[in-house]
Amino acid sequence: MPTRREIAAFEAGIKLGALYHQFVGSPVSASTAESLERAIEESISLQPYVIGVTVRINRQRLAENIFGYSELSGSMITAEVQVEYEGEVVRARLEHDPNTGYPMMRLV
Amino acid sequence: MPTRREIAAFEAGIKLGALYHQFVGSPVSASTAESLERAIEESISLQPYVIGVTVRINRQRLAENIFGYSELSGSMITAEVQVEYEGEVVRARLEHDPNTGYPMMRLV
Amino acid sequence: MPTRREIAAFEAGIKLGALYHQFVGSPVSASTAESLERAIEESISLQPYVIGVTVRINRQRLAENIFGYSELSGSMITAEVQVEYEGEVVRARLEHDPNTGYPMMRLV
Amino acid sequence: MPTRREIAAFEAGIKLGALYHQFVGSPVSASTAESLERAIEESISLQPYVIGVTVRINRQRLAENIFGYSELSGSMITAEVQVEYEGEVVRARLEHDPNTGYPMMRLV
Repeated sequence: MPTRREIAAFEAGIKLGALYHQFVGSPVSASTAESLERAIEESISLQPYVIGVTVRINRQRLAENIFGYSELSGSMITAEVQVEYEGEVVRARLEHDPNTGYPMMRLV
Repeated sequence: MPTRREIAAFEAGIKLGALYHQFVGSPVSASTAESLERAIEESISLQPYVIGVTVRINRQRLAENIFGYSELSGSMITAEVQVEYEGEVVRARLEHDPNTGYPMMRLV
Repeated sequence: MPTRREIAAFEAGIKLGALYHQFVGSPVSASTAESLERAIEESISLQPYVIGVTVRINRQRLAENIFGYSELSGSMITAEVQVEYEGEVVRARLEHDPNTGYPMMRLV
Repeated sequence: MPTRREIAAFEAGIKLGALYHQFVGSPVSASTAESLERAIEESISLQPYVIGVTVRINRQRLAENIFGYSELSGSMITAEVQVEYEGEVVRARLEHDPNTGYPMMRLV
């Protein structure tokens, strides 16, 4: 039997995996990043056990193509989700790791 | 050689296909539909040749699951994109067809 | 500090969230379900710590539209991922819950 | 009223937009690229009016992350769709443009 804390960690993982693979690829620019941040936060906040979500798209990492926009990639996103399962609260974070270039997800 | 109007129609198709397959599956509810509408509109408006996008998520068609939200499906979306390619303007529409249940895309 | 088992559970959650939100919405039919199952399995198996993935698309739940195909939805998928993090092995499952209609994800 | 050829071009655009935004972000490597190519081809071939689809993931452009895989991006894909609408056949292509770095879609 998993512990409540393991279940909370599992649920946090689901949210970051969902957030990432649902929205990566969306066209985005400096002028539209804010509406995308809000939409992602509100969307993921609906999922089970979520008590907090913050999403920040790093404007410095937006690389404009010839048509003046980018596509959202993992390396542009800093996100944190907080989930509560039967009293156990877990926070997890998605953040670009500058050493490896990998969009790392971890429990915090 | 395609005509300018054929190219404009092609570009309009790209936008509706992109809009649909990028955002279908996103968690959504009556209280978050508006932020998702805005984000989709702003995101797709960045793509080449787009001069207008409107997205409406049909609140009547949101079917709540046991956790009180829905996932965005094609049948919930009414969207219209307007593209201009070298002076040729084309409008295209995504709309649930009540007779067939299919989320129909067409030039208008 | 999270335990190794909590991290393994977290990683398993990421994989199910990713699998779901990457591939839901894909056109699918009885004749193409197998190639989609293989592609999803192979794709998710690349993610960190995964030691096993099985994906089954329920042919009974494919609901043909007027053009003779379906779009992959959560309720059609049974998936299991196995992850190993520093010796701790965790299995997690995505499966349609017939009582609630919800595509439930859980640790097993 | 759009011409049949404009409608065919529109339909071809839908398919490329769908293909791109459904599958971009999928984990992929040299050893799994083939199953993903087949799944994309079979999936998109189900959509209305499609009479041919070929998808090629450019192995040279797979850029391994620290865990030994990539995520599918537009610049890795060469795809061609052929659609027929009321006797009018249109081909369209998605291909990385080496001059601009943009994953260009065009009628051919």
